[in-house]
Amino acid sequence: MNYEAYFKRQIEGLHREGRYRVFADLERQAGAFPRATHHRPDGTSDVTVWCSNDYLGMGQHPAVLSAMHEAIDSCGAGAGGTRNIAGTNHYHVLLEQELAALHGKEAGLLFASGYVSNWATLSTLASRMPGCVILSDELNHASMIEGIRHSRSETRIFAHNDPRDLERKLADLDPHAPKLVAFESVYSMDGDIAPIAEICDVADAHNAMTYLDEVHGVGLYGPNGGGVADREGLSHRLTVIEGTLAKAFGIVGGYITGSAALCDFVRSFASGFIFSTALPPAVAAGALASVRHLRSSSAERERHQDRVARLRMRLDQVGVAHMANPSHIVPVMVGDAALCKQISDELINRYGIYVQPINYPTVPRGTERLRITPSPQHSDADIEHLVQALSEIWSRVGLAKAA
Amino acid sequence: MNYEAYFKRQIEGLHREGRYRVFADLERQAGAFPRATHHRPDGTSDVTVWCSNDYLGMGQHPAVLSAMHEAIDSCGAGAGGTRNIAGTNHYHVLLEQELAALHGKEAGLLFASGYVSNWATLSTLASRMPGCVILSDELNHASMIEGIRHSRSETRIFAHNDPRDLERKLADLDPHAPKLVAFESVYSMDGDIAPIAEICDVADAHNAMTYLDEVHGVGLYGPNGGGVADREGLSHRLTVIEGTLAKAFGIVGGYITGSAALCDFVRSFASGFIFSTALPPAVAAGALASVRHLRSSSAERERHQDRVARLRMRLDQVGVAHMANPSHIVPVMVGDAALCKQISDELINRYGIYVQPINYPTVPRGTERLRITPSPQHSDADIEHLVQALSEIWSRVGLAKAA
Repeated sequence: MNYEAYFKRQIEGLHREGRYRVFADLERQAGAFPRATHHRPDGTSDVTVWCSNDYLGMGQHPAVLSAMHEAIDSCGAGAGGTRNIAGTNHYHVLLEQELAALHGKEAGLLFASGYVSNWATLSTLASRMPGCVILSDELNHASMIEGIRHSRSETRIFAHNDPRDLERKLADLDPHAPKLVAFESVYSMDGDIAPIAEICDVADAHNAMTYLDEVHGVGLYGPNGGGVADREGLSHRLTVIEGTLAKAFGIVGGYITGSAALCDFVRSFASGFIFSTALPPAVAAGALASVRHLRSSSAERERHQDRVARLRMRLDQVGVAHMANPSHIVPVMVGDAALCKQISDELINRYGIYVQPINYPTVPRGTERLRITPSPQHSDADIEHLVQALSEIWSRVGLAKAA
Repeated sequence: MNYEAYFKRQIEGLHREGRYRVFADLERQAGAFPRATHHRPDGTSDVTVWCSNDYLGMGQHPAVLSAMHEAIDSCGAGAGGTRNIAGTNHYHVLLEQELAALHGKEAGLLFASGYVSNWATLSTLASRMPGCVILSDELNHASMIEGIRHSRSETRIFAHNDPRDLERKLADLDPHAPKLVAFESVYSMDGDIAPIAEICDVADAHNAMTYLDEVHGVGLYGPNGGGVADREGLSHRLTVIEGTLAKAFGIVGGYITGSAALCDFVRSFASGFIFSTALPPAVAAGALASVRHLRSSSAERERHQDRVARLRMRLDQVGVAHMANPSHIVPVMVGDAALCKQISDELINRYGIYVQPINYPTVPRGTERLRITPSPQHSDADIEHLVQALSEIWSRVGLAKAA
């Protein structure tokens, strides 16, 4: 076996399919979001970022940055160990309390990333409860799927956002078996939103726990930024609400919130939690400042929704079709990996607009797209520039325009 | 099924075994390591930390802290996305190049944590190479075991640090099957070191790839801090060298280094890489400063070894037995979970010394211990205070002393 040749052949396959990923080498400009410096082999240029998940620009908020600076000065760079071995910092304790309060839960638990929080929590809950059956929405995120897979417990996939199918699947199961229904509030790539109340109704009727991934909802929805469940007054109905500090809150890390016993159980048994170094104090301090700010300020959420509405309206006016959904995510469909990459290249090279192509396996083949994420910092002029660029490119490459 | 009652019963079981984990709530004092403020329900007190994995105190190094401050000011708090979608920052690119150079490899790849780097890389390599067989040292870290398990590929466990047993296991396999030998340089809990050259010899004879976890070696060993393999001139013989930015380098994050094709393969196919938000620019910038410093300065490594030698000598003199090993990790055996916790509590409450008890599942039952990690910042007086405290406690609780 020639390993090098094998790896190269696999990479060549990605090139042939047009879905080899080239990372844009950026330097975001704090204070000037959504502007960033783009490093290329032949030099640098300024770009406007239109695909960041720092949805509200909290990554440049003065309160967040100053909290990070202070924590570095007082506590240093890293946590120095796992949470159990010298790595728990007072900021972690305060942040877990804040996140619990955000979701109206007894307790919170931090993880290195949202991926790890989903993977570790789902695999631990399912594998540590003998006979547990997982009911998983068919479009759940990779991190949830991998966590469920890792648990090796019995799994039933229910049709996307379909409480009736979930009901049928639950009715088939042993009424006494432990059950966990895992789903998301806002689905990242289509931007659609789950019928949370109906799913909770069905889960309750069958005594199943509920696990809601709110990573694309926290900070963005609800009077306190507690997510879609918060907006709909449903937080108390979820057994676990999982979220991220890396999107609307602007930094990095993941978390769960739930009952004190559940969080203690995951804390005590989840390998991916126990054996990972804790988040740096500065990350926890910055996240704490960000969560606190967004619990009391709705200005960012309102401006965010305004920008989303304006972009959709202007896209409609020039006839560039986008997928209808009730969230802040604006998917503009292309439907071909190579064309999607070509359009993205043209946007950055000719217009200074950065929107990464989204190809398989992030979305199904044939649904390749540009996933556009407006922020409060995108001006009317930024929107016009984007819309005009897309309109011109659409005409040039012969993509259909709406009437 | 009453879920709450189930979680509570499981937690009660941990209490009964004496291995329920209580996290010490700390504030490390930048500039005054190993000192930290200990937050307790009844107030705060100063403690000396003796169990941190910030082995060299790089978490308070001025070059590291100023690099982090600068990156926050220029680029903001978080990366803003996954590496592929708006999250690659120029610091990531520079850091990956630096890590590749540190290990004499073509390329490097960053992950959210060392846990994720092991889990994602091993599960991807093994599951994406049809018929791949993993040869795994029996004492490999949880993150490696979980990655291997997740791959669902055929696995053979070889006796710890035993090239002859590895040879027997490899000889049993189809000569044409892809194979990967996974092991560590320094084993975290016993502090013993692998016979890297002999393991590479055996692997080479059977055309197996080699995967070396150097998380407890990087920064600490070798003329440039490239780890034990660097010290022994063996870096070029490993297919993959995996490391962490969270221990000797003082911050957070994990990485692999290897050939360009291998890193590109993992970058392109590893779910745990693709779907995780990139490390914050400030983390990458701080790590870059830390790696650069330790590539050119050996002063921290020399002082570190001096402190380790002095602590061992003084423990010998007072008769507190510790496990002999050729590394910087000083395991002081207790052999009982409840007693280990009791000693740790006494150390922090009566002496202001923080050493976390290490119990199952981190170590096998019956081998519970204090795992002591001296740093360059521990003074002679710190060592005396620790040694006297242990000596007094050993007499008080009736633990045997050596002659």
